[in-house]
Amino acid sequence: MGKLKVGMIGGGGDGNFFGHVHERAIALDNSRELVAGALRTDPEAAMAAAGAYDVTGYPSYQALLQAVQSGEQALDYVTIVTPNHAHYAPAKAFLEAGIPVLCEKPMTMTVAEAEDLKQIVDTGKVPFVLAHTYTGHPMMMFAKELVRQGRIGAVRKVEAWYNQGWLATPLEEEGLQQAEWRTDPSRAGISNCGGDIGTHAFVAATWVSGHAVTKVSARLNSFVEGRQLDDDFNVIGELDNGGTAIITATQIAIGYKNDNGFRLYGTKGSLEWHQERAESLLVRTGEVDETYWIGANFSFFPETIASYQRVPAGHHEDFFEALANLHGSMERLIRQGRGEDAPDAFDHPGVDEGVAGMRFVKAAVDSSNRGGAWTDL
Amino acid sequence: MGKLKVGMIGGGGDGNFFGHVHERAIALDNSRELVAGALRTDPEAAMAAAGAYDVTGYPSYQALLQAVQSGEQALDYVTIVTPNHAHYAPAKAFLEAGIPVLCEKPMTMTVAEAEDLKQIVDTGKVPFVLAHTYTGHPMMMFAKELVRQGRIGAVRKVEAWYNQGWLATPLEEEGLQQAEWRTDPSRAGISNCGGDIGTHAFVAATWVSGHAVTKVSARLNSFVEGRQLDDDFNVIGELDNGGTAIITATQIAIGYKNDNGFRLYGTKGSLEWHQERAESLLVRTGEVDETYWIGANFSFFPETIASYQRVPAGHHEDFFEALANLHGSMERLIRQGRGEDAPDAFDHPGVDEGVAGMRFVKAAVDSSNRGGAWTDL
Amino acid sequence: MGKLKVGMIGGGGDGNFFGHVHERAIALDNSRELVAGALRTDPEAAMAAAGAYDVTGYPSYQALLQAVQSGEQALDYVTIVTPNHAHYAPAKAFLEAGIPVLCEKPMTMTVAEAEDLKQIVDTGKVPFVLAHTYTGHPMMMFAKELVRQGRIGAVRKVEAWYNQGWLATPLEEEGLQQAEWRTDPSRAGISNCGGDIGTHAFVAATWVSGHAVTKVSARLNSFVEGRQLDDDFNVIGELDNGGTAIITATQIAIGYKNDNGFRLYGTKGSLEWHQERAESLLVRTGEVDETYWIGANFSFFPETIASYQRVPAGHHEDFFEALANLHGSMERLIRQGRGEDAPDAFDHPGVDEGVAGMRFVKAAVDSSNRGGAWTDL
Amino acid sequence: MGKLKVGMIGGGGDGNFFGHVHERAIALDNSRELVAGALRTDPEAAMAAAGAYDVTGYPSYQALLQAVQSGEQALDYVTIVTPNHAHYAPAKAFLEAGIPVLCEKPMTMTVAEAEDLKQIVDTGKVPFVLAHTYTGHPMMMFAKELVRQGRIGAVRKVEAWYNQGWLATPLEEEGLQQAEWRTDPSRAGISNCGGDIGTHAFVAATWVSGHAVTKVSARLNSFVEGRQLDDDFNVIGELDNGGTAIITATQIAIGYKNDNGFRLYGTKGSLEWHQERAESLLVRTGEVDETYWIGANFSFFPETIASYQRVPAGHHEDFFEALANLHGSMERLIRQGRGEDAPDAFDHPGVDEGVAGMRFVKAAVDSSNRGGAWTDL
Repeated sequence: MGKLKVGMIGGGGDGNFFGHVHERAIALDNSRELVAGALRTDPEAAMAAAGAYDVTGYPSYQALLQAVQSGEQALDYVTIVTPNHAHYAPAKAFLEAGIPVLCEKPMTMTVAEAEDLKQIVDTGKVPFVLAHTYTGHPMMMFAKELVRQGRIGAVRKVEAWYNQGWLATPLEEEGLQQAEWRTDPSRAGISNCGGDIGTHAFVAATWVSGHAVTKVSARLNSFVEGRQLDDDFNVIGELDNGGTAIITATQIAIGYKNDNGFRLYGTKGSLEWHQERAESLLVRTGEVDETYWIGANFSFFPETIASYQRVPAGHHEDFFEALANLHGSMERLIRQGRGEDAPDAFDHPGVDEGVAGMRFVKAAVDSSNRGGAWTDL
Repeated sequence: MGKLKVGMIGGGGDGNFFGHVHERAIALDNSRELVAGALRTDPEAAMAAAGAYDVTGYPSYQALLQAVQSGEQALDYVTIVTPNHAHYAPAKAFLEAGIPVLCEKPMTMTVAEAEDLKQIVDTGKVPFVLAHTYTGHPMMMFAKELVRQGRIGAVRKVEAWYNQGWLATPLEEEGLQQAEWRTDPSRAGISNCGGDIGTHAFVAATWVSGHAVTKVSARLNSFVEGRQLDDDFNVIGELDNGGTAIITATQIAIGYKNDNGFRLYGTKGSLEWHQERAESLLVRTGEVDETYWIGANFSFFPETIASYQRVPAGHHEDFFEALANLHGSMERLIRQGRGEDAPDAFDHPGVDEGVAGMRFVKAAVDSSNRGGAWTDL
Repeated sequence: MGKLKVGMIGGGGDGNFFGHVHERAIALDNSRELVAGALRTDPEAAMAAAGAYDVTGYPSYQALLQAVQSGEQALDYVTIVTPNHAHYAPAKAFLEAGIPVLCEKPMTMTVAEAEDLKQIVDTGKVPFVLAHTYTGHPMMMFAKELVRQGRIGAVRKVEAWYNQGWLATPLEEEGLQQAEWRTDPSRAGISNCGGDIGTHAFVAATWVSGHAVTKVSARLNSFVEGRQLDDDFNVIGELDNGGTAIITATQIAIGYKNDNGFRLYGTKGSLEWHQERAESLLVRTGEVDETYWIGANFSFFPETIASYQRVPAGHHEDFFEALANLHGSMERLIRQGRGEDAPDAFDHPGVDEGVAGMRFVKAAVDSSNRGGAWTDL
Repeated sequence: MGKLKVGMIGGGGDGNFFGHVHERAIALDNSRELVAGALRTDPEAAMAAAGAYDVTGYPSYQALLQAVQSGEQALDYVTIVTPNHAHYAPAKAFLEAGIPVLCEKPMTMTVAEAEDLKQIVDTGKVPFVLAHTYTGHPMMMFAKELVRQGRIGAVRKVEAWYNQGWLATPLEEEGLQQAEWRTDPSRAGISNCGGDIGTHAFVAATWVSGHAVTKVSARLNSFVEGRQLDDDFNVIGELDNGGTAIITATQIAIGYKNDNGFRLYGTKGSLEWHQERAESLLVRTGEVDETYWIGANFSFFPETIASYQRVPAGHHEDFFEALANLHGSMERLIRQGRGEDAPDAFDHPGVDEGVAGMRFVKAAVDSSNRGGAWTDL
């Protein structure tokens, strides 16, 4: 049971920051290692980036795939950290070759692409994990588990949000690359704020509650003058059980950093979680507020969650650890698939959540364009 | 400059609890006193209730008004604490007689009634204060002041909410009077949750921001089976400057008590306030979060706010004090009107806010009935 | 069962602020009224102050007492809000006359005076309440109740603190009266910080835990140059059950306002309370943190505490209400003593706590002067 | 500039948990790698543990040292994670051989041993880092930096604490190894609570403030029956500038996990930090509270701190990252020593802090045994 070997697509250029986050997340548990990469589009730049990462470089994802198929390059799965528009092609190629994929979100540029990937995954039974990092936080997993156990009864209403302030001014005109591509329709697609962070709020609302959003009424804004895509995203949705979801995201909330979180109101109780205080979960089922803390040694965690934690109570795990948990789920799926001894993987977001996310953003944009008319997903 | 003499309409029966809150708020500063009351509809019960309150009793508001007009009963203003449907008639009668009115919210049952009161107030120049208690919290006043001073620049987006959990089950079927009349269309009007607490969120959104809501798209729910009126109220609104307001209220959030608050996002900064932690205000204009605390001695408070505070920093004032501040504004208006020496009254909600609130609830109900269609106020 | 009639000694001059706090607390429940006062030492000033308070004025406490004894002035109890050195004489005089006394803390200037008052109270069975305002906070009362019920088992350790910052600079040299008398040995006695706020921490430690402090080791500091009395007060104490108390108070903690609170660690659990967030109490008996909120309608409050609350959950009561609860206890004691129908009084601090507080400060000063040597109370 | 090669002493047996924490911290930045280990005392067990860690195994630290000295084993520094009593010998051996050491705390068993290590380090100029993990938290580093910059003026008083609850019952009698050795004088030395967590509070008090503790008055308790060493540790100390330090630690605070933190009060302001909410720092220099958040992109961080952070604001780094920062300091010291390009190391605790910590615990135990008498360090 050696370390799993991981390849990375993208992560060498502008995506550099997040490439290194994955690099750390892969390494964190000493059971996976980053060994190969097709890290940039330009072949020469790709090889140079591989040197910087200290992995075997390939000039393109096709070259990496070929090397794997020819047996030259040992590889257990790939991570895709390219910009949004460049997720689909490599994901499709590797999945069709039967190689598991851990893909950044949003999954694709269009609903059609997303559905295509789903078809491949469903047919080929290839492990696919969507990198909604926050779903790797044990307390967000615990929230999903409590809902599943019926702790708050039937879900009536969900509120999920993601407030940021970094795009409150036109940074894209000042040359900031992160701002440039996100606000450029040719690279970001039909939505900036909705696609980038609205999808996180959407996943919180649906993945934790266990309910799909079936239709939406939306109002998107572009508050910063000259900006073509939304920097503010507000959706009222209907859940598949008739409940209501309020999903909001904004990038113009000055001083807010990654204020992502959710509240769930059920027939028996409520849950509340905040990403920026990820270490605790508030549960209310009666007169006394209950606060649960992260910590591998707490007996209230089922083994499915405790096995994802690395330190006892009082010491928190946060961002890298959450992403490492998604890589951990991929690892468990692969190892169990091979008959190796591994704990069960938690049901982290996969291709279904990816498809739903694409449909959600599309329906929200359409609804907003039609004056908030209710639009099916 | 003796104490102002106050009369109360209602407050003797089911409204007992809130009648006594007003009683305390009137007495708190030793500059006002409750002296007379028409406390219940039934004349005999009214007289009995007056005994319990230890004030001069009248069998009806008409009788009280007559006694004032005949000079029998000295009175400076009246407080109306009857159920919603019984605000309009006494408010109209006293205002037409030139007697100032501090009225519980929502102001009336219909928009037409509200507009009628506004016409009387505007014509007669009679002081009128609407009892949105939370607007009497110095930190909510301070938020309004900071916006007015331009601290957060132009307002782009407002979020205001009010989450409660007490109606998560059908308490109206178990004989709880507070639940019965609120969920009964004949006594509560067209909306339960929206009228009762949605209006608080609405006032937070508009009064603090200084911007009106011009149109809304809404989704109202009745989650508890058999309930005729909404117990969940969700609105996306457009501000008069093109900004967006997200206004939500619910009564099915188990464990939430009076979770009322707001966030304002402007071009230069953000503000955040929570009623259940009313003593502080979070201000974000750059990289460092600033927290302001209540306390008469803080130099950052303008005199218009400091003069409403009773204790120095570290000792909080809360519910009774906030309501007393609305009575205090009424007192200042009356005294200044008489040429007495009194500090300026803060511009607490009055008849304009009352009319806007009625239009808001009506538009939200209409929009929800029409599938969320955008509806003008 | 008319209103109780209350007299006030002091409160007309420098003590003005706190006199008015008592005035509000007396009035808050409409069952007590301030009717008479000997409000300043100077007879003329006393009469003028009475006019401002709108009560019957007396030139001295002796004159007030005489009027009561002669039947001229109806009076149920007196409140003493003079500076520390002027508590003893009027308290003694009224108590000896059988008139109940609610006295500001610290009770006296010396241990001998305190013991004398105790002897009078114990002999005469006259109601006596010591104005440790914070003990009137329902959540502090609830903490005491939970300990009494055994919720945290046997108490092992108590931490109690009171951090302020207002005396971090020599305000007494800038003419601030509140600073002048507190740092002047002739008016404040042997301790400034310990007597003024250390006693609050001491009461938290002992009254809530139900355990006396038997001996102490202390280190007092005067951090501000030229100051004769302590502005920083640190004590390790031994409890009567062998446990340990850490009691600290300081006036040089810049930015801290009234950061008073306590933690109790028992054999079965822990409690934590903060005065500046008085509305909640943290209870830990196992893996999940439990937070209890104030609110008359919560079923976890025994009637002895619920009956002291005025509003349901979600609306807080704070400073005035806490002090009003001490007046409420006095009222209950008096009414029950007369055979009137009144709920039982909570056992708020009285003459025993006053004596213990005086002994505590004395022992701490002595210990500090002797290099921290353990000193019996 | 390849990866630094790291060896580990201990970490294979009971210290397993913490060995793996170091393993992750070493790997986190992909610039260091764990390559060799003498992981247990028993030679065979040591070799087996090395297999589990997937590193080159050695039967003893002496064997590892010999292999390094003979050139067989490339190694840049060692990490010592043995139980307390087994720190001294390997630390001495490697330091004398000129090999840098990152050592777990407390540094040694006795003051003499600590002074011996200091002499070796000072003479040989060998990099030595003491693993006070929390000092690697960027916000704790920022606190130290703010004090150094004079932001709070001269330090008057420091409060530092560490509250845990896990030893509130006699777990050592139930076979828990972590409890057994810590409460056993032969393995833990003269103090359990003081040595284990009191030293963390001590480092917070002294390292952040920049002031040494010169003498102490202490009260240590063993609350759990039958326990020989302290499970509760309370110290009042004098700082080298005449200030006061209150240093407390306990293991009987049920429900408290790793409640470590500090408050510093200076002539110009105050600082407050809590390890369990490590992501923020509270600064008070006037009327408005300022909260600073972790995040590499905040401009208020000097480069010396920003360079230790891995993610932008809104995503926290916590336990592993803090320890990795200490390894990072070791790495910077080594690389700069070789003339490689590396940012300056922050002055994390080293051998001086180790000596001071040993003297502190010794003085506290002595003082407590002598009834709290002030005892020089």
